Order: sequence, then C-alpha cells, then structure tokens
Amino acid sequence: MSVFTPVTAREVELWLQDYSVGTLVELQGIAGGVENTNYFVTTTLGRYVLTLFERLERADLPFYLHLMAHLARHGIPCPAPIANRDNEYLGTLKDKPAVLVTRLPGISVETPDAARCAATGAMLAHLHLAGRSYGRPLANPRGPRWWRDTAARVAPFLEADDAALLREELRFQSLYRLPDAPRGVVHGDLFRDNVLFEDGRIGGVIDFYFAGHDVLLFDVAVTVNDWCIEADGRLDEARALALLRAYHAVRPLTALERGAWPVMLRAAALRFWLSRLEDFHLPRAGEMVLVKDPRHFRDMLRLRSAATRLPWPG
Amino acid sequence: MSVFTPVTAREVELWLQDYSVGTLVELQGIAGGVENTNYFVTTTLGRYVLTLFERLERADLPFYLHLMAHLARHGIPCPAPIANRDNEYLGTLKDKPAVLVTRLPGISVETPDAARCAATGAMLAHLHLAGRSYGRPLANPRGPRWWRDTAARVAPFLEADDAALLREELRFQSLYRLPDAPRGVVHGDLFRDNVLFEDGRIGGVIDFYFAGHDVLLFDVAVTVNDWCIEADGRLDEARALALLRAYHAVRPLTALERGAWPVMLRAAALRFWLSRLEDFHLPRAGEMVLVKDPRHFRDMLRLRSAATRLPWPG
Repeated sequence: MSVFTPVTAREVELWLQDYSVGTLVELQGIAGGVENTNYFVTTTLGRYVLTLFERLERADLPFYLHLMAHLARHGIPCPAPIANRDNEYLGTLKDKPAVLVTRLPGISVETPDAARCAATGAMLAHLHLAGRSYGRPLANPRGPRWWRDTAARVAPFLEADDAALLREELRFQSLYRLPDAPRGVVHGDLFRDNVLFEDGRIGGVIDFYFAGHDVLLFDVAVTVNDWCIEADGRLDEARALALLRAYHAVRPLTALERGAWPVMLRAAALRFWLSRLEDFHLPRAGEMVLVKDPRHFRDMLRLRSAATRLPWPG
Repeated sequence: MSVFTPVTAREVELWLQDYSVGTLVELQGIAGGVENTNYFVTTTLGRYVLTLFERLERADLPFYLHLMAHLARHGIPCPAPIANRDNEYLGTLKDKPAVLVTRLPGISVETPDAARCAATGAMLAHLHLAGRSYGRPLANPRGPRWWRDTAARVAPFLEADDAALLREELRFQSLYRLPDAPRGVVHGDLFRDNVLFEDGRIGGVIDFYFAGHDVLLFDVAVTVNDWCIEADGRLDEARALALLRAYHAVRPLTALERGAWPVMLRAAALRFWLSRLEDFHLPRAGEMVLVKDPRHFRDMLRLRSAATRLPWPG
C-alpha cells in the first residue's frame, strides 16, 4: 500500500516553491499501488500526483519520466511530469527521489465491455507508434533474463508439478526470441487498473514504471490476458477480438506476429506468474503489499498452452 | 473571425493519421480570434485545438510552440502542442503551417472580481519564473522598434492632438530603456479573453502568439490595464492591488520596478493604442477583423500619464 513515506502539507508547500504550479490547496494520500508513495496534490493552478520512489533506482527514473513526457506530448493521455525551476523533472523529497505529474481524469473499470477493450487496444497501438520516436533505451526489466533469474529463486518453493510447468515454459519460450518481430517501448503492465475511463472514453493511462523496450506484441498479450478473460482466465473471444481489431486498425499486425501470438500469450502469463510467485514466496522486507494468488497466472498459462484456437483479427 | 481556411472532417481525419491522438470524433470551427484559423478537434483520445497559421512566419513558429511546451511542462495551464509521428510539433494542412494543441477547460470572464485578478497575477508570476529556463530567443515583436515603425505609418491619419500625444509618448518612453529591470519571456497579450476560469480557478492561459522577450513588468502592466479598470479606463485600486500583491507573493517586485511602474503602464497603453490604430487605419487585405475603437487606449494613455497615484503592493 502506498504511503510508505508520509509527507506533511507544510513539507509539500515548501517543496512546491521550486515549481510553477501555484500554491498548495489540498494534499491527499492515495491508497493503491504497491511500489511508491503517492499523493494527490491540488494547487491553485492544477491537479497533480506527487510520487516518492521507494523501489526504483534514481538512475533508472529519467527513462520513465522522459517516456511519459514524450508520450504526453504525442497526445497519449498519460501523466506528464512537471519540471521544476531548474528545468528538471526529478527532485528530492524526504530523501527520496520525487516527481510531480499531472493528474488524469477518470476511474478504472473492473469489468470492461467490448467497447472499452477496443478503446484500450487502439490507445495501446497509438502508444506503441508514439514510442517509436523515443530515444532512450531500457530493456524491459521483466524480460526473459528476469524470468530465468526469478524462476531460479522461486523454484525451491514450488510443488513438483508447478516446478515442471515453469521449467517447461522457460524452455519453450527460449525457442522463440523473435528477432524480427516489431519492437519498441512497451507499457508492460497495462492491466485494467492502469486505464482510467471518463464517460466511456479513456481519460488516462497510468503507471509506466514497468515500461521498457520489448516485443510490442508481448504488450498486447499482457493486456489481452487481463482485459479479455473470464473469471477462470479463459479468453473471451468477443472482447479479445474487439481489442485486437482496434489495435490492428492503428498499427497493422503482421503475419509474423500472427504466428507468434500463442507464444506471446504464454509469455505474458509466465511473466506475471513469476512476479506473483516472487511476491508470495519472497516478499521484500517491510512491504505491505496485498499478495495476490499466483495460481491465477499458473492456470492461465496452462489454458494458453492448451488452447487450440486463439482470437486474432482478420 | 477565425475560420479563414476551412478544412473538412475528412481532411482532418487524414491529417490525424500522422498523430497518436486516436481518430476524429468531432470537428468544430471556433469563432473568435483574429489571427489564425482555429477548430476544436475531439478525438477518441482527447480534446484538442487545431490552428492553421494565417499571419505568422513559419520560421517564427517554433519559438511559440516550444514556449508553450516549456511552460506546460512546468505546470502552467497553457495549450501544449502535440508532436506528430515524426516527433515534430509543426505540420502542414491546406498549405498552411498547422499545429494541434491540447484544449483547456474553462471560459473567460468579462468582469473579473479581485479574486480572479489575484489568481491571474499569481499565474503570470509563475509564467515569468517558469520562462526563465526557456532558451530560445525572440524579442517582443510589439516592442519599442515596432512602436516607432507603426507610429510612423499611422501618423498621417491622426488628428493633430493625437499625433502630438503619440509623438510625446514615444519621446517619453525613449528616455526609459530600463536595462536593469528583470526581463524574460512575456505573454504580451494577457487580456481577459486569454484566461479561462473553471469553478473560480484558472483552467487555461491561451494565445501565446504575441509572446517574446521583454521587461517582465511590461507584461504586468498590459494585464493590469485590461483586468483592473473601470469602463473609462481608470484603474480600479482594489483589483489592481489584488493582482499586484498576488504577483509579488510569487515573484517579488523590486524597487527598480516600483520606480518604473508608471512608465510601464503608459508603455502598455501605448502598445495597444498603436495596434488598434494600425487595425483601424491600415487593415490587412481580406481580413475580417472586428475593428475595435482605438480611443480606448488613447484615453487610457492620457489617464495613466496624468495619474498622480498608482496602486503598488507593499
């Protein structure tokens, strides 16, 4: 949960003197999020979110902040970092790296219909296209190397059949590196709680702190695996097709991507199974994370591996 | 009026394919504004304003667009230009330089109270401070050189006493170049119709196409001369003090500026008297500008020159 480092209104008032956002009107801690401390900051000139980074390395933060600035200036409704009087996005508050970003309108939708899945698919394609002109490099921090490292660390805690499934999936995935698949900036975590809707339209896309460079289709698979499923993890064909068709209309999917789709859906399930296993068996000290059941993604991985027919546009 | 160059929904749809803002939902011409063609553009991902430039040189536009981008990323609620797939702000539509900027909420207020004057004063000070880290140079295009050039062009149309007033004011102003006064980026045209309020708070500051580098206090004077006056042009002390105090609280005004205040109020009246005279006597061909009475600013100049007591904070 998300006020790991409490700050007072007075501390924020002083800190805001380095910014051109007016003076503090209201400060409100945000519940939700498992990585950082977040506050809603309302000033005389606007509505912002203050984030104090609890996990990420300071050196990695410019990638994320400049990415959000880049996407925002391309029209993607994502949080735009605010520069301070020194023209810097990244500041320090309570000895933590800290940033002020714009606050976006809307709320997340737990049971999105096909229209919202389509809106999300189109937005993701726009995000991928806008990301093409983003210059800073950062490999997806939750990519294949992290899969292998994490698998090694969680393996001792697993039952034999889960360990076998994990081993087998890593072997399977290692056969598909897809050097020719379209790559670029991926959001990496476009779950339903990271898209805000307002009057049926997307008001915001948030939480870019798992972004990086990777196969674009992997990002689509992560999204479909959260947005277009039944409670048991099975794909809902109507919503999956709505999302994929809307994506395809903006960034046409290639024949190579069509071939890689089953692999990517499995890779996306694997990636979140691993992080759930890590959170479950190897929680970080002092964390107050609501640990989610890893079995959701294990079962999803089994379903995707066994699926004989997967929705695909066109 | 402001649709000099009509564009169709189909033309905008095609043009938007170079952007990451989704697809067109609604296109609506904007009445108001005398320089450019403006449309409200609503897409599946946001609300924008499309501007086709009718007067400004293409080479000058990057100054304005990057200024707005700079101020927006500092938290000033001004239109932020949207970059296209080539990562450029400036495009071409119907053979005109064209830009898409974010649309801001709120409406302008014709008879602002002291609270709104104060909000505007504070925002202007924040704008001046945020402008300090903006690197591109452009002298105020409506500065002293333009005063002299324009005065020479309109002089033949003036009655003798107006001509004498103008001559005398140019002479007076030439005595005060204020090399040590704080300078920086000025908005240059912060009239009431260029600030949008929403629920009593500033939702937007618009129309930066008269911005440039100049004495900051000149910008304050332009603002006070429009926001804090009676119908006859006389200053309203309560509103002027509210604006100045709020400005002073953010960017403290100096003793030198205190001394220059009467000169700057006259300079601001002169600048707009001249542009009104130019619009009145030398309208550009094909323009559909609502010509405003130049006498408002002539009378204001007389009032400011004769004033023995001018509001000042502290």
